[in-house]
Formats: sequence, structure tokens, C-alpha cells
Amino acid sequence: MIDFALDAFIEATLREDLGRAGDLTTNAIVPADRTASATIVARSALTVSGLAAAGRAFVLLDPSVTVDFGAQDGDTVAAGTVLATVSGAARTLLTAERSALNILGRLCGVATLTRRYVDAIAGTNATIVDTRKTTPGMRALEKAAVRHGGGKNHRFGLDDAILIKDNHVAIAGGVRAAIEAARTHAGHLVKIEVEVDTLAQLDAALAARADIILLDNFPAADLIQAVRRTNGAALLEASGGVTLASVREIAETGVDLISVGALTHSAPSADVALDIAET
Amino acid sequence: MIDFALDAFIEATLREDLGRAGDLTTNAIVPADRTASATIVARSALTVSGLAAAGRAFVLLDPSVTVDFGAQDGDTVAAGTVLATVSGAARTLLTAERSALNILGRLCGVATLTRRYVDAIAGTNATIVDTRKTTPGMRALEKAAVRHGGGKNHRFGLDDAILIKDNHVAIAGGVRAAIEAARTHAGHLVKIEVEVDTLAQLDAALAARADIILLDNFPAADLIQAVRRTNGAALLEASGGVTLASVREIAETGVDLISVGALTHSAPSADVALDIAET
Amino acid sequence: MIDFALDAFIEATLREDLGRAGDLTTNAIVPADRTASATIVARSALTVSGLAAAGRAFVLLDPSVTVDFGAQDGDTVAAGTVLATVSGAARTLLTAERSALNILGRLCGVATLTRRYVDAIAGTNATIVDTRKTTPGMRALEKAAVRHGGGKNHRFGLDDAILIKDNHVAIAGGVRAAIEAARTHAGHLVKIEVEVDTLAQLDAALAARADIILLDNFPAADLIQAVRRTNGAALLEASGGVTLASVREIAETGVDLISVGALTHSAPSADVALDIAET
Amino acid sequence: MIDFALDAFIEATLREDLGRAGDLTTNAIVPADRTASATIVARSALTVSGLAAAGRAFVLLDPSVTVDFGAQDGDTVAAGTVLATVSGAARTLLTAERSALNILGRLCGVATLTRRYVDAIAGTNATIVDTRKTTPGMRALEKAAVRHGGGKNHRFGLDDAILIKDNHVAIAGGVRAAIEAARTHAGHLVKIEVEVDTLAQLDAALAARADIILLDNFPAADLIQAVRRTNGAALLEASGGVTLASVREIAETGVDLISVGALTHSAPSADVALDIAET
Amino acid sequence: MIDFALDAFIEATLREDLGRAGDLTTNAIVPADRTASATIVARSALTVSGLAAAGRAFVLLDPSVTVDFGAQDGDTVAAGTVLATVSGAARTLLTAERSALNILGRLCGVATLTRRYVDAIAGTNATIVDTRKTTPGMRALEKAAVRHGGGKNHRFGLDDAILIKDNHVAIAGGVRAAIEAARTHAGHLVKIEVEVDTLAQLDAALAARADIILLDNFPAADLIQAVRRTNGAALLEASGGVTLASVREIAETGVDLISVGALTHSAPSADVALDIAET
Amino acid sequence: MIDFALDAFIEATLREDLGRAGDLTTNAIVPADRTASATIVARSALTVSGLAAAGRAFVLLDPSVTVDFGAQDGDTVAAGTVLATVSGAARTLLTAERSALNILGRLCGVATLTRRYVDAIAGTNATIVDTRKTTPGMRALEKAAVRHGGGKNHRFGLDDAILIKDNHVAIAGGVRAAIEAARTHAGHLVKIEVEVDTLAQLDAALAARADIILLDNFPAADLIQAVRRTNGAALLEASGGVTLASVREIAETGVDLISVGALTHSAPSADVALDIAET
Repeated sequence: MIDFALDAFIEATLREDLGRAGDLTTNAIVPADRTASATIVARSALTVSGLAAAGRAFVLLDPSVTVDFGAQDGDTVAAGTVLATVSGAARTLLTAERSALNILGRLCGVATLTRRYVDAIAGTNATIVDTRKTTPGMRALEKAAVRHGGGKNHRFGLDDAILIKDNHVAIAGGVRAAIEAARTHAGHLVKIEVEVDTLAQLDAALAARADIILLDNFPAADLIQAVRRTNGAALLEASGGVTLASVREIAETGVDLISVGALTHSAPSADVALDIAET
Repeated sequence: MIDFALDAFIEATLREDLGRAGDLTTNAIVPADRTASATIVARSALTVSGLAAAGRAFVLLDPSVTVDFGAQDGDTVAAGTVLATVSGAARTLLTAERSALNILGRLCGVATLTRRYVDAIAGTNATIVDTRKTTPGMRALEKAAVRHGGGKNHRFGLDDAILIKDNHVAIAGGVRAAIEAARTHAGHLVKIEVEVDTLAQLDAALAARADIILLDNFPAADLIQAVRRTNGAALLEASGGVTLASVREIAETGVDLISVGALTHSAPSADVALDIAET
Repeated sequence: MIDFALDAFIEATLREDLGRAGDLTTNAIVPADRTASATIVARSALTVSGLAAAGRAFVLLDPSVTVDFGAQDGDTVAAGTVLATVSGAARTLLTAERSALNILGRLCGVATLTRRYVDAIAGTNATIVDTRKTTPGMRALEKAAVRHGGGKNHRFGLDDAILIKDNHVAIAGGVRAAIEAARTHAGHLVKIEVEVDTLAQLDAALAARADIILLDNFPAADLIQAVRRTNGAALLEASGGVTLASVREIAETGVDLISVGALTHSAPSADVALDIAET
Repeated sequence: MIDFALDAFIEATLREDLGRAGDLTTNAIVPADRTASATIVARSALTVSGLAAAGRAFVLLDPSVTVDFGAQDGDTVAAGTVLATVSGAARTLLTAERSALNILGRLCGVATLTRRYVDAIAGTNATIVDTRKTTPGMRALEKAAVRHGGGKNHRFGLDDAILIKDNHVAIAGGVRAAIEAARTHAGHLVKIEVEVDTLAQLDAALAARADIILLDNFPAADLIQAVRRTNGAALLEASGGVTLASVREIAETGVDLISVGALTHSAPSADVALDIAET
Repeated sequence: MIDFALDAFIEATLREDLGRAGDLTTNAIVPADRTASATIVARSALTVSGLAAAGRAFVLLDPSVTVDFGAQDGDTVAAGTVLATVSGAARTLLTAERSALNILGRLCGVATLTRRYVDAIAGTNATIVDTRKTTPGMRALEKAAVRHGGGKNHRFGLDDAILIKDNHVAIAGGVRAAIEAARTHAGHLVKIEVEVDTLAQLDAALAARADIILLDNFPAADLIQAVRRTNGAALLEASGGVTLASVREIAETGVDLISVGALTHSAPSADVALDIAET
Repeated sequence: MIDFALDAFIEATLREDLGRAGDLTTNAIVPADRTASATIVARSALTVSGLAAAGRAFVLLDPSVTVDFGAQDGDTVAAGTVLATVSGAARTLLTAERSALNILGRLCGVATLTRRYVDAIAGTNATIVDTRKTTPGMRALEKAAVRHGGGKNHRFGLDDAILIKDNHVAIAGGVRAAIEAARTHAGHLVKIEVEVDTLAQLDAALAARADIILLDNFPAADLIQAVRRTNGAALLEASGGVTLASVREIAETGVDLISVGALTHSAPSADVALDIAET
């Protein structure tokens, strides 16, 4: 199945790099009929994401290129693993290289960081989820990368669930009023989540039957209290400044979800490279 | 002057977040006629970039919003600094918040990391430059962020200069042949840079009168040799695995340019937030 | 707040009508400096929707035009009601007329038909909801029209909730297996609805704790049974061939939701017109 | 031959339904390698239009899908007729289903209603034509549907013929002045039609040698008069509130053309469905 | 009234020139707050077209710029005439200069050449018309330029009239068969023109009642014969290799229309310049 | 390798011609299953450019069409040369004909005129270069045509080199100040060219070490002086009112580059045609 949004993204990525005049260097030096094959290699251990997209970059630019995958999105691989082999016109391989790697490196970075968070809470009942703090234009890809790293997704946008934040609560005049306004407007398929800053607000949210309650910057002791008071009546999400150092303690409080903005806004790019071998 | 590319980017960013149905939460809870003002605040010390873009996000979404800037792109500010104050419909402020911050946080992150590299080599003759390892769709913005952080820009794309990489050299059959092929095809306004892996290749590049020579992963001792041999006949660029720990030693070898991919592919997002104060 | 999607839709609508050469008739006959005002009038009783969009068509084409609204989306008005008065260049009024009315007529048609269904079940606990059987390119507008007519919205697309249909059940090997597969993949904000054809399937869906159960083409007697068995454990949606003649009987069975494809796929356009009065 | 406009329309239709995250249900439940075939079936008697477009929706989304047509645009078929068989990945069939059917149902609706009008005037010399009261974005498709139903097309837009309406006449200061202004500006390939409300205006239009004269809301007796007076000197088009009940009487007056807005603005969607049979 | 197509064309023109990084020279040298005014001047005598478009280029790029026009499209002016004065940010004037002049120079070129052809046949009954041999993307603008030069427009595209060319005739099996096939398919608003190579074909075209007959590469003597035989029963268009040297003789044969491809495919750009005067 | 920008340009060209309703004539007269082959022929001697693009127009519109090339971009051919043979559906050949020829004729025109300038200076050391006076939307194609004609390219846009013009010099307060401001802002890959009007300014430009110096409207005697003073310290470009009559004298002064705006703004279209031979 064609992913129209992905193809448009890849074409825009390539065109941003090609500019008006194309790859001056390659066109000057590499004969048009020279073929080659190249490997896309993980230079360090990583969790794979974006591999299909990276391969697609070559094929969209040049449908005569073939791509053989040595791994797939979601795999965790050792340094040195050949992720894919790309064969075709040498010009294509060189011209698409940077676009493909920019996409792949970023998405492997997100998946790899997610995997570290997920591994850090192994054995608990909590789930790592992302946020809307994503790269403009790459939300669907980055949310897929979070899934490839073992996490789950929070909202994809402002339109697919209600998330009442502190400012909404303030304007509505309280947690209960905000939830009721939301319920009046929301369709029957829309879940309602509310952010609370205190245990008192938690009680109000429970009384108003929120589906999910986001506990913002709660100390671990308060999280434990919150889990106790809630007793399964709603899903509880811990959020705010979560790090690899703190995430396990948070998970062990019994919350259902831990959202981590850093998964998408601060994951360093993974080290991937393309090695060309002439044929 | 309107920046058409920027406006298109911002609109795409907003639409990605708004989806088909818009901001369900805000539309359910916040009255359409409620106004507010909000501050965009640096939660930690940072170098500013993307502030004009972030302000533009509010105004594009709602031309009746006003933005007053408390800082400008290129400033380095302390934690707590109010970067801008945004006033207008409360719905607009809440709906555009995440889009504006996603852009601003990423670009401040790039500028702040660049500033650290630039400060690390203060007093040397070297210049920090970026690479093409940028976020798809954000190249011009991220390259501006590098300038805001005190760095300079390398190529904007494959079409605005010649950069002969190792694979080109291999296909051309040597550094000299590659440079000559490039010179034959390039217009008179196009500079020619060539990547070399050894001092022997450096000599070939100098003999062929390359404008700039990229020294790939040279140890410091070799960089010093390269500077000596070149003696101003070409610009020298050090590249490959540069870190904040290693950059000063590299700069002190006397190279002209140090390119750092991490500036754009691995800068953590800066911590910026929007605080709403009702009016 | 600008609705980017709406503006793009209106511009496309106008450009489809204007073609390459624009309004030949108006440009030949009406002087460029002639001004006029016009009223948009409901020729028959109707429920209003799309009025803001219709007004926007004039203003997008010519920002110097002014629009004064005599009604607003959601109002039910008598034949002869002036919905809006548009003033400005006579050429603009004539050139945008058909585009504006095509949008308005269709959306008022949807709202008016919805209102009839909603009125038909007044006093019951059921809610009228739409489907994804919408006009390509107009889903958000038509779903707003359903709300303006007093209905509620079902899914906006394939991505904002799980709706397991008969074919999914068949492939999954049963209602329970399908619901479990869905729950494994879905994020915590996504509700799960399943379509059932029999009371036995209803039981399976209840056992698997579906959030909503769609009762496809159930006779009224079976709907009553379904309501009894469910006893509030899930929302129940009646669907399939619902007409104005049958909807009340269905509503009185106690189901929560009644979905009606005809609201958007077969509503006749409402009779709206533009009357120009020179000034 | 590729129809670029059609492909863009179909892609937009699919993307509207797929949203950011795609078909959650199908992706959760249906294995990626499961294949299936499905029939597109007419649930009631109808005249076919949009079948090529509906088939194209599957193929654009997934070029490995094959479509075999059991009928073609323009055919009138009985309830139960298999219009097409679609084979390929089960996910594709389920994901594209609604988009394809929304297009097909609407266009068959237009063709079927047109066919009823055309049949109603069989044996007369009149021709049923459409108007510009079409669905935004679908004008070319709906006008093709009118042809499939046996009708002919009026203007495609404001730019492909002159149609002087009552407001133009008023501004020009009379029928004759309006026609003369139009003739001065129009190219030699552009025909001139004028709308008249009275027999006196008809005389003026004839005197000014209009190519076509639109008789707006003329009673049948006046239409007969108009035909007599015109005596072949211009084409005559009857328009205004034409219904299936009134159309034959109008046709029998001897007018050349009868334009019916309802063909495109109020045709109920035809009942078409996709039945999946696993393979 | 906004011309959406024109604005999109101008934005694309500016973006093609601005590239990814914008006007390097102006941004480096001209302070952002420097204002200036500039005149757009005709360096040689010319007929004006595209002046509104050229002015719009500045205003679209920077809405704070003001443009005062010293002439208007359709005027014929002497060398040295100030066509417009543009005032605002100096950066804007310099950055938009080339885009504005490229549009203006080309369109004035078309209008000026058209005016020469029109003047060359003054006093005859013939009309100069253009062809579809236009610059890709600029058809509407170039056809307006033809009108500004005193000519009239032929078809705007393949869809707004029937023009049966020699290849169509050959495939149809003759002039008569081709015209009849065309008449069967065409709507009542579509005129039918047919190209003929001989007087015998002219007779066939007259017998089949073509609206317009294109006489392809007829010698003057044959044109006179054709006019005589036709005797007003159809419009006659002379076409093929018309030059300024030959056009008057052709016009004096009595044909109605003379089409000249060179108007749009070979008009040299008019000499227009922008002179900046600081303020 | 796909040229995304070219494909988008061709599709826009075709859609501009096809309008909403497509090729009325061809669809009415030519059976859908009729095949044919056609030759694209040079009607006069010319230098080829745009042939690949012209062939692509047929294939993009109809992937089942095949194109065999009889020449290639850069060839200079005699009148009567078959440039390509196109085979496939007769409708496709007729429908794409004008779009393909409009592109081809214009680009061959540019290449042919360039070739005349290049030939005129054969044996000198000068190079013919183009300017930014290109057709909106066709810059990359026209600059390729200049290369096909034996010329070289100047800047592709405002962003790929510094070119300081007289207005910049005036605002900067002199040639030296302008060059220094440019050097401060420019990256290390950007060359700096400056326009001078006098020999005194030339001296200033040399002192400030400009890479290239544009001598604007210098008489030949002054060009000779300029070459002498410069003595290889910078490239010298002669510009301003260059004609085929004057270009050799200019080249013989010893300047390195001669820029000619007419190559792209005033080249008459080359005479190319498509001859259909049924099969």
C-alpha cells in the first residue's frame, strides 16, 4: 500500500537537498551509466525505525533501484549490522544518500531512546508513551518510531482526544466544570483526559469520571497516593521531567502510563551510514 | 518581507496538529470571545533562534493576535527570560502553543549547542560550520539557528557548491581526476571542495588547486601537518566525530573550519514554555 | 482564527469555477468600479450551516467585501429569512455567487435533514450520529453541519477510533479475537467499537468489553433484547437503512446512538439564493 | 491516459479518510500478507458513473491490486449487478472501500437521476442539461455523470461561455446592451447565452442575436409562445424549478434544452457496496 | 478581486529566485530598516502588459510596499516613461526586482509585438488572434497581453472549443465525418472550428456547417477564393507562417481572423528596468 | 533518476492545456483504442534542448507510450531531422502535442541562440554565460539549454552566490565597503562578484579581492584596460547590451565571461513540429 503522506515527505526531503540545479558533484564526476551497490550500516547498536522510509527514498528517486532489507523496523541490532543493501545507478545512490540517512538516523534515534526507557521499566505495569512534542512534519513517523522502540502513542493531534490542561481548567473554573464542558461537546468515541496538579484535583477528576488523569510533576509519594485513591477507576499517566534515572521509580508507583517528551524532542540521531561498493 | 517558505512550513506544522477536527479540548472549554495574554519563557539558559517563527505561528493562525518580543534570534539569555508576550483570543494561544514551541525549542536547541562549540574554540582562528545532516523540511531554519549560535553555514544543498566525497574520488579514479572533472562542469561561481583521508591525498588536492579541502577524521598531529603543507593555499576543514571535548584541540591545529553534524542532528530541544495569564 | 483547511477548500472551489480566463460575462458587462450589495436568502425553511464559509468565499476573493450575518450556523429559519448581506464590488458578488451558494446549499441541506431526524426522536434517549459516507473533500464541513442540525459525530476518519466491521471479524476469526487484536494495538485514548449481526455476537462483544457495539440491521425486537442484555455495559448504536419513517421506533428501543448515512450522502441541497440590489 | 486531476482528487479523498495514523482497525486486525477479492455491487437498479474512478482508488493506493470491471460508466444495470471485482491485499480493499464507494455512490446517483429525466422526455426534441450547481471539487466528474445518464453539459465554469443573467442585464441597462457588451469582449469561439424573464426580453435577445436564450421560470404556455417567436433563430433553454413531474410538459413545448440543477445538487447517493470474499 | 492563479504564479516566481537561503547579497549589504523608492521604467517604446502583476510581486513579498502606477496595461508608451513607482523597504525592492521585471518584460514584449501586427492591418476587417503556443504556466497572462496589444484570443485550452486539425480529419476519414463526430459530442455552448488545407475541404466544411474554418497556409489568391465561396456562412481564419511582412496582404483578402503563433512564442522581451532612488 | 521538479512542471503544463474538460476535439473524434506513431521534427536547423522533457510529457500523460530519440540535448541538427518518434494511443499523441512542443520549441530556441553566440567567439578565451532573466518557472530548464548550446551558467538564484550590483554599492557607500560586508556574511563556499561602472571602481574591487568583477557597459577600449589592470587577479565578466554583432569584439578584449540576457529572455522559439503517421 502506498503511503501518500510518506511519499510526499520523502519527495520534499529530496527536493530540499537537490535545489534548483541538482547534485552538482555527482553529475560532474559519476557517469550516468555507472551502477553500484551500497550497504546501509548501523555504526552503533540501535533500534531500527524508518528503514522502509529510507529505502523508499532511493526507489522514489529512481524506480530502477532495488533495496534488500537486512533488518526491519522494530529490530534492535548490534553495531555493524547491515540494515539494507541498495543497488542501482551510482548517481542515485550518492544523490539520495543524505536524505535517506537524515530520515533514518533521526527515527532510529527516537526508537533507540524509547527502547531504553521501555527496558528501564521492564517488569512493571507501566507503559511508556510519547507526546505531541514532535518534529514538525514528522509526527506520524516519529510516533511509529516510538512504537518500534516498544512504546505506545499518546494523541496524534489536537483533534483525536480531549486533553484538558491546566490552562483549560483555569478558564473553565475547575476540573469538574472542564470535564463536563468537554463531555457535552465530545462525540461518543472521544476519550477525556485531564491534567491535575494536586491530589485534590485528582479527586475532582475521579468524581467527574475522567477516562485518564495526567498527574503533572507529582513526586513519587504522591503518585503512590494517587494510584491508591484511583483504584482502577481511571488510567493514570505520570508526566513532567521524566528521565532515564527517574523513570523506574515512577513506574513502580503503579501508574499506568508515563509520558516522555524527550523521546521525540531530544533523541540524538543514531549513527547510520551508507558504504558504497562499486559493482 | 514575507518568507513564503517559512509561512508554508508553519501552516503545515499547525495543520499537522489540528487534523481534520481542530482543537477539540479548547473549542469545548474556552469561549470564543475570551482573550488572554501569554509569555513565552526560557526555562533554562539558551541561545535564541526561531523566535520570529514562533511568533509568526500565532499571527498566521489568527492575524488579530499581537506579539511583543523580549529577545531576538541570536541572543543568549538566562533561565526565566521572557522571550515574547502573545496577546489575543485565548483559543488561539492554546491552539497554536504546541506548534510554536516545537519550532522554537528545536531551533533554540541548535543555536544553544552551536554557541557551546563556538565558545569552546574562542580565541582560535577556526570557524564552526554545520553540515547537511539537518531535519527534513527545516534546513534553512536550522542553518539560521547555527548562525544565531555564532557558527557559519556549509552547503545548503547538493546544488550550491561542489563537495567531492570519498566515493566520488573512488569512481573518478583519484583526487586529481575528480577535481578536474568537477572544474570542467562547474560554473565560474561554484567553489570546489574535496574530502581527503590522507596527507598524500591532500597533496593531490593542493596540486589540483581545490578551493577547500576537507580532512576527514584526521588525528590532531596530521591536522597540524596538513596546515603546514597547505600554507594558506586552500581552506582546510576538519570533520568527523568532533565533540565538545575534542573541538578545541582541533581548532588549535590551525584549520580554518570545523564541521559538526551534531549541531543539527543531535541537539536536544531547549526548554521553552508558554505561560497563559488571563486578561 | 483562520481555518486553513476551509480557506484552501474555498479557494479550490472558486478556482474550479473561474477556470483559466475568469468570469467572462461579468468582466464584459459590469464596470470594475460598480459596487452593490446583495442578500443571501433562504428560499425555504431550513437549518443553517456553512454560512460562515459562504461569507468567507466573498472575502477571500476580495478582502474589501463586507459580510453582515442575519443568522448563524445552527439556526433554524423560515423561508424568506435573510441569512447574510454582502456588500462590495458588484463583480465580486456576481463572480463568487455560485461558489458560495454551492457550499451553503449543500451544508444547509445536511443540517436540515439532520434536524428532521433529531426532531423525530425528541424525548427519547437516543442520539443521531453521522457516518463516513461524506462528500470527498467536505468531511469536516459536513460533520459540522450534522452538529448544526443537532446530531453528533461518529469517526472523522479511519485513524481516530477503532470500528471493527463484519469483514474484520471474519478475518480475525470472531468478535472476541478481533477486539483483542484491536486492544493490543490501540493506544490508551482510542475507543473500540465493533459491529455485530446477531445477539450471539453481541454477547461476545460484551464479554470482550467493547466500548461501543454497532447493531447492524437489527429488527426492533432484537434491539430491545440487545438493550436489555447490555444493560449499560457498552454504548449501543443502531445502524442500517434507518429512515425518517423508522427512526422513532428504533430510538424507542433504548439504543444510545442511531447512525444515518443519508444525512451526508443523500441530503438534497437546501434552496438558497443571492439577490443583488445595486447601491 | 492519466487523468491528473482525477488522481489528485482520489488521493485527497483517501488522505482525508486516512488521517495521520491510517486505518487503525485494519492494521490491527488484518495481517499484511492476507489477500482477498471483493465485488463492488449495485444494491439497487442504477445508471453507472464513476466506476473507473472507484477502481482507480484501489490501484492508486496499491498498484498491485487488480480490478476487473463487470460494467462500464453509462450502463444502466439491475440491482445485484457486480460492477467490478477487486483483488489484492485484504488491507487495501478494506482501507480504500469507503473512499471508493463515496465517489461511486455519488456519481451513480447523479447518472441515475439524469437518466430518469432523460427517459421522461423520450421522443421529444429536448435535451436535458446540467448547471454549475455541482459539488465543490467534483464538477468534471459530475458533468461526466450527467453524460453517462444521457444528458448534456452546460458551462463547465465562468470562463467557457457567456451566460448573461438577470443581474447582468440590470447592470447593463437592458438585454440588448448586455449582449452587445458581451460580444465586444468575447472571443470568436465564445457563444453568448442570455437569461430572459419575459417574452419582451426574448424579443430583445432575438434582435441582438443571442446564440442561446434561457427562459427562466416560464409557464408552459409562454414557452410555447417563445418557441413560436424564435422559430429556430436561437436555441431555447427552459430553466427553473424543473421536476420529474413537470419535465415532459416542458419538453413538449418544443424548447431545445432543459437545465436541471437537481441533477447535481440533490441526487441521492446510489446504493453501492463492497462485499469481501477471502481468497 | 484577488487573482488566485496570478498570486500563485508570482509566489512561485519569487521562490524560484530566492531558493533556500534568500537574497544573500541584499541581506548582507542593505540594512533591514533602510527604505527606498524605485521607478519601473520603459527603456524603449512599448505596449504595456503585466504591470499590475509586476506591482503585485512587490506587494505579495512585502505588504508594506506601496505601488503607484504611471501607466496601465494596454497603454502604448514612449521610451523613458515611468510605468510605476515602488516605495518601501530597500531590501524588498532589490529582492523582488528581477522577478517583477522578468514577468513585465515578457508580457510587454507580447503586447508590443501584438500591437505591431494589429497596426499593420489597420483599416481592414480582420482581427489578430493568438494561439496555444504560449509559455508553460503563463497562458492566461500572455493571452491578456495579446488583448492589451489590441488582439483577440483563440482557445485558452483543449477544453473550451473544438478545433479539428488535419490529424483529426485524417483519423475521422474526412472533414464532414470529423465535424459530425464533434457535433455529436459537443455541448450546445461549444463552437466547432475545422482546419482545411484545400478549397475542396473548405466546401466540405461549409456543407457541414462549421462555425469557423481555419485556412492553413493558403496563398493569398486562395484566401480570396475562400472568402468568396464562404460568403459569410462561417468565420474564416488564416493561419501559418504569418509575418509582419505578409500580414496586411492576408488581411486584405477579407478573412475574419489571422492567428499568429509568434505573438507568444517568439516575442522578444521588452526593455524594462528598475531604477532605485534612495529616500 | 526522476526529476521531481521537471515532472511537476510538465504536469502543470499539461493541466493548463487540458483545463477541466480535457481535449474535447480528440475525445470526440479519435477512438480510444486507435494507436499511432508520430515524429517530432526540426523544421529548421537548430541546437537541441528539452528533448528529454518533451518525450517525458507523453510518458507522464500515458505510461504506455514509448519514445525513441533520434537526437539528444546538445546536438546541432539540420532542418528535417527527426528528433524523436513517439508511439502509442493516438489520443495521447494529439493531446500532449502542444504541451511537448511548447517546451521543446522554447528550449531549442535558447540553445540555438546560445550556440550562435558561442560560435561567434570561437577561438577566444571568453565564455558565454546566461543571466537570471529567465522565464518564470523554467530557470533550471533554460539554464540547461544554455549549457546545451555551449554556454555556461551564471547564478541560479539570489541564494547561490553574491552579486553586488550598483544599487548595493550605492547603499553600502562604495565598492570596498560592499565587498567587505558581503564577505562578513557569506559562507566559505560562496564566491563574491561585484558590478563596476568605471575603471576606478575596478581598482577598488581588485583591492578588496572580489572573485569576479562584472564590467557593466564598458566600451571595448575600457575592457582592454580592465583586462590589463586585473592581470588575472579576478575573473572579468563583460555585460550589458551584448549582441551577436558586438560579441566577438568584446571577447577579443580578453575578458573571461560575457553574459547575455537575450539568451533566455528573447530567444525566438525554434520551429519544431509533430507529424502523426497512423499505424
